[in-house]
Amino acid sequence: MAHKIAILGASGYTGAEMVRLLATHPNMEITALTADRKAGQTMAEVFPHLRHLDLPALVKIDDVDFTAVDLVVCALPHATSQQVIKALPRDLKVVDLSADFRLRDAAAYEKWYGQPHAAMDLQAEAVYGLPEFYREDIRTARIVACTGCNAATGQFALRPLISARVIDLDDIIIDLKTGVSGAGRSLKENLLHAELSEGTHAYGVGGVHRHLGEFDQEFSLLAGRKVEVQFTPHLLPANRGILATVYVKGDPAVVHDTLTAAYAEEPFIVTLPFGEHPSTRHVRGSNFVHIGVVGDRRPGRAIVIAALDNLTKGSSGMALQNVNLMLGEAETTGLMLAPVFP
Amino acid sequence: MAHKIAILGASGYTGAEMVRLLATHPNMEITALTADRKAGQTMAEVFPHLRHLDLPALVKIDDVDFTAVDLVVCALPHATSQQVIKALPRDLKVVDLSADFRLRDAAAYEKWYGQPHAAMDLQAEAVYGLPEFYREDIRTARIVACTGCNAATGQFALRPLISARVIDLDDIIIDLKTGVSGAGRSLKENLLHAELSEGTHAYGVGGVHRHLGEFDQEFSLLAGRKVEVQFTPHLLPANRGILATVYVKGDPAVVHDTLTAAYAEEPFIVTLPFGEHPSTRHVRGSNFVHIGVVGDRRPGRAIVIAALDNLTKGSSGMALQNVNLMLGEAETTGLMLAPVFP
Amino acid sequence: MAHKIAILGASGYTGAEMVRLLATHPNMEITALTADRKAGQTMAEVFPHLRHLDLPALVKIDDVDFTAVDLVVCALPHATSQQVIKALPRDLKVVDLSADFRLRDAAAYEKWYGQPHAAMDLQAEAVYGLPEFYREDIRTARIVACTGCNAATGQFALRPLISARVIDLDDIIIDLKTGVSGAGRSLKENLLHAELSEGTHAYGVGGVHRHLGEFDQEFSLLAGRKVEVQFTPHLLPANRGILATVYVKGDPAVVHDTLTAAYAEEPFIVTLPFGEHPSTRHVRGSNFVHIGVVGDRRPGRAIVIAALDNLTKGSSGMALQNVNLMLGEAETTGLMLAPVFP
Amino acid sequence: MAHKIAILGASGYTGAEMVRLLATHPNMEITALTADRKAGQTMAEVFPHLRHLDLPALVKIDDVDFTAVDLVVCALPHATSQQVIKALPRDLKVVDLSADFRLRDAAAYEKWYGQPHAAMDLQAEAVYGLPEFYREDIRTARIVACTGCNAATGQFALRPLISARVIDLDDIIIDLKTGVSGAGRSLKENLLHAELSEGTHAYGVGGVHRHLGEFDQEFSLLAGRKVEVQFTPHLLPANRGILATVYVKGDPAVVHDTLTAAYAEEPFIVTLPFGEHPSTRHVRGSNFVHIGVVGDRRPGRAIVIAALDNLTKGSSGMALQNVNLMLGEAETTGLMLAPVFP
Repeated sequence: MAHKIAILGASGYTGAEMVRLLATHPNMEITALTADRKAGQTMAEVFPHLRHLDLPALVKIDDVDFTAVDLVVCALPHATSQQVIKALPRDLKVVDLSADFRLRDAAAYEKWYGQPHAAMDLQAEAVYGLPEFYREDIRTARIVACTGCNAATGQFALRPLISARVIDLDDIIIDLKTGVSGAGRSLKENLLHAELSEGTHAYGVGGVHRHLGEFDQEFSLLAGRKVEVQFTPHLLPANRGILATVYVKGDPAVVHDTLTAAYAEEPFIVTLPFGEHPSTRHVRGSNFVHIGVVGDRRPGRAIVIAALDNLTKGSSGMALQNVNLMLGEAETTGLMLAPVFP
Repeated sequence: MAHKIAILGASGYTGAEMVRLLATHPNMEITALTADRKAGQTMAEVFPHLRHLDLPALVKIDDVDFTAVDLVVCALPHATSQQVIKALPRDLKVVDLSADFRLRDAAAYEKWYGQPHAAMDLQAEAVYGLPEFYREDIRTARIVACTGCNAATGQFALRPLISARVIDLDDIIIDLKTGVSGAGRSLKENLLHAELSEGTHAYGVGGVHRHLGEFDQEFSLLAGRKVEVQFTPHLLPANRGILATVYVKGDPAVVHDTLTAAYAEEPFIVTLPFGEHPSTRHVRGSNFVHIGVVGDRRPGRAIVIAALDNLTKGSSGMALQNVNLMLGEAETTGLMLAPVFP
Repeated sequence: MAHKIAILGASGYTGAEMVRLLATHPNMEITALTADRKAGQTMAEVFPHLRHLDLPALVKIDDVDFTAVDLVVCALPHATSQQVIKALPRDLKVVDLSADFRLRDAAAYEKWYGQPHAAMDLQAEAVYGLPEFYREDIRTARIVACTGCNAATGQFALRPLISARVIDLDDIIIDLKTGVSGAGRSLKENLLHAELSEGTHAYGVGGVHRHLGEFDQEFSLLAGRKVEVQFTPHLLPANRGILATVYVKGDPAVVHDTLTAAYAEEPFIVTLPFGEHPSTRHVRGSNFVHIGVVGDRRPGRAIVIAALDNLTKGSSGMALQNVNLMLGEAETTGLMLAPVFP
Repeated sequence: MAHKIAILGASGYTGAEMVRLLATHPNMEITALTADRKAGQTMAEVFPHLRHLDLPALVKIDDVDFTAVDLVVCALPHATSQQVIKALPRDLKVVDLSADFRLRDAAAYEKWYGQPHAAMDLQAEAVYGLPEFYREDIRTARIVACTGCNAATGQFALRPLISARVIDLDDIIIDLKTGVSGAGRSLKENLLHAELSEGTHAYGVGGVHRHLGEFDQEFSLLAGRKVEVQFTPHLLPANRGILATVYVKGDPAVVHDTLTAAYAEEPFIVTLPFGEHPSTRHVRGSNFVHIGVVGDRRPGRAIVIAALDNLTKGSSGMALQNVNLMLGEAETTGLMLAPVFP
């Protein structure tokens, strides 16, 4: 019998991507979809690409009957999410796509998100939702906090290297390029087509991007000491895709071996042969991550490049991996869609 | 047990799209992939987005053991295709993506393709591969000729209207906009990113585009008289998607009713409510067609707009529909992937 | 001595384009720039691509000293424009980029713009700002109303044909494709990069687009009878450029001859050799119009295709032509910039 | 009287850009245009965006009368260029856009370009064509070698910092994003629209990109010691524009002050206020460079970001600056065109 899923905040891109993935999942049924301003509309009105599906209309959260729901996917904005999840029945499983339950430390949350956390008691039971590294905890968790899409990309490139201590922890630079859908469907001048197409620029330069909170937490935990990376995201004139170009000091062959070994059994992570490196185009629309390692001409320096689709593996695909784990399904069910190229 | 499929010409976009779709089909196995110049390479080298799949390496056609093949999908260039199919075992089922077996009339073929047809005997047993209209013939056919992607789009908009004689047959204009992947992976200056992005232009203007051969054949057959439409394709700065804006003279409400009734039971064709019209973005990567009808301010004139993905519904998705029909599978198997938006 | 120009509404794309063009004009000086919500900011903040210029800061309209101004370019939204122009000193020359003074008939204005016109007295002295056709009136006008960008493109393709009565006036179809900058810098969901890139759709289908008001007025005036064209605009995933594909019934050679003769002396309008047709990419960033004519396979039918840059020739370049004429400068001064390709 | 300019290799993008810029230069006349395979065609056929200009038809180099030429702009491919320039009259001024005369050391040339240099005697008289740094030498040079477009961008960000010794010379990383027109108009599969749009990838990773030859030569010369930077270029889905994100170790305020002081008098280089950083979109089609400096959260680290248009400031605009200097014109003549945005 199909698991019953409610998606809160279904009028945004991650909500729509969740519906897209669930549409061909054999054991899931969408029983509720919510949107705040767009409540009352059908999903076909809000996202015409989903009009062939038989979906419940968008309602307000208060109008959802959660007793008929097995798991909630929460695709709400930061800060809103914690309020909403706090008000849900206490035994309901939750996969949260916002930043609200990613940071374990209340002070860190306040530092990066500019306000105190309102549900620290729930934070204690939340598991960081990177399935490749928290798989067993996720299986039994009630609340899973999916990671930031940039944070996921950087971590896929770096976690095994930090754990294995094969790189200099004090000189890590993540130069990241991201498609625009990561910024969501919000009405901002800098997200207009005329402002974005045919060019690029950096943003959040100098150590102010919020995903650094996740990098700091996770990398420091792995290293057993404080690790602070440099991180510069850039906006690409493309809708989907993140490419992280990571500069590390360490032996390139060892770096490659370490990543290859770490991901040997992972169904979604492909480590390329040494010297090859990925393109975002080759993971578009899929849950796969491609990682490459190249040695620099200067000995002892390696470039690690990781590519994924921010809406799939970086958000809703990761969420569905977590949903599968939490509901006892095979982790890859519904997620083996091949990338869409060109 | 899985059906065994060989794909000839797998290094082009339609070949790759066929692999993408078969990758999540439950009952198909790819047993051979061919490419001429790229024989010897792996599919991962030629199309890195497929590297997570366990696929046979590319070989030359002569190196394929066709005794172990149930059906051949032929994604070769026009003219090459007829030679290759002629040389295949005579009992092998074939779905051809080229133009070689679309036109029943030898003179028409020579007119539109500039050379005599070399396998007219095979042409006699080929079925025109538009499944919504030739479904029963396709089930029992040995050779099915998938249609041109533009030809498919125009026909979805017009066939029911011509059959039902609800429009003026002498005043039909198809103004079509197509993404660039329809032109294939060939090295032409006008297909370079720098030449194509950020603008548009028409091509094949004035009644010289080859897909007119298909329009003329099919529409005249339906009407029982000669029908010649006007057709102007334009190249879009987008990879996938065709939008056909079709100008007809007829009662808009009747036009809408006729299309709605014709497609009521079709799993892949969605007729929008009267007055609404589609976007190519909402069918991208999927096998769906969206069709809308709007009445003009001038009475007795309607605009029919149809959208599909040229690589999926316009080519390899249509091919897989045909493969399913020919091998006794449910027609929709493996084809219900939701569109990828944004 | 340089003419003193004020630009009202300088924070939008047409305002910025006006500044771009004036930047290399030898005899113009920008003495005031206004913006409503962005008053107080510098132009470099609002449009960093203009930061190398020494420009006045943005102020509110009330803070402009119009006694030091020779001519006002008004790039304000429809409806706002008429209020503002009404309040300006009565002897000040005005070039208006809004729709407010394009339609001579009060009822027509109300029909297409949904509200009564508030300055019909000024309308009486306004000249329709298509310089190739109203040149002499523009020289002596106080108020010139630049045309809509789509309206300009369609008129360049059709005016000489209607004047010369070489086409069927009852069967004209304009299928138009426009870049997104024509929609301005406003915050609308459908103008986001993620919603617009990589695809196309029609809008204003069926005879409801406001530029039809201009087509109706001008074409009927030329023909001496009512002329109502069909008009379907489509949104392109490109920032600049309009391509109008116009279907007419008439002799293609006569159509071509008529256009060639009409534009023989025009500095900005290039009629291509018979059978060739233009691309928007080849006029980008320039004040040129390229027009081509192709004969259809069906005798007595021609396709006329016109391309221009909506922000330059379709808006601010046209405005500068008018400014030049009104201030006694050579019409082409500052406007001979070659298109930017690729 | 106008200077007479010949452009060799006018069928490529840098050749066309040269024509675009010269089109509005008051004191230059194009007297010859050459192309090898396209000889015999008009420029309007090869580049329709230039069809409004009265230009000589394309001829083969052997058919040019160089006695009527004051200066040759050579836009030929690497290796070809040295052969052609060697055969020109020895008193003819030459601005070369290829890599052939950039590297002073024969061994370096052979290392980076894979073959021995065939005209080292001419190399001795060639001046490195970065006008902001070699201005006086350029005025009197016979041969000027314009720099690589990536090399120019990196040098604008770094030269003053290396000269002033305010950064660690052993830890410089240039992560660069470039538009596709930098790769020229050549027919390569990876330059097709379908392969490039909607994504990004790195290339020349690990210290193998040829522009490193220029970085090594120039930075080592400035430092008086060997300097080897890390350099990773990425291909953007955009036609024009380079953004170099440069990671340095040094005091951010000092870095900013050094750059601001260095470029205070430069007409084309704009140093942004501390903490701001540029977009490629804001220099498109222009000869301007925008440079920004941001301090990292980790003390002693700065990010320098430089943006320019690879075809203008990175190639043909730089060339015209050099032409102006060599012919006694004001350096900025014809080059003050404002960027085209959006």
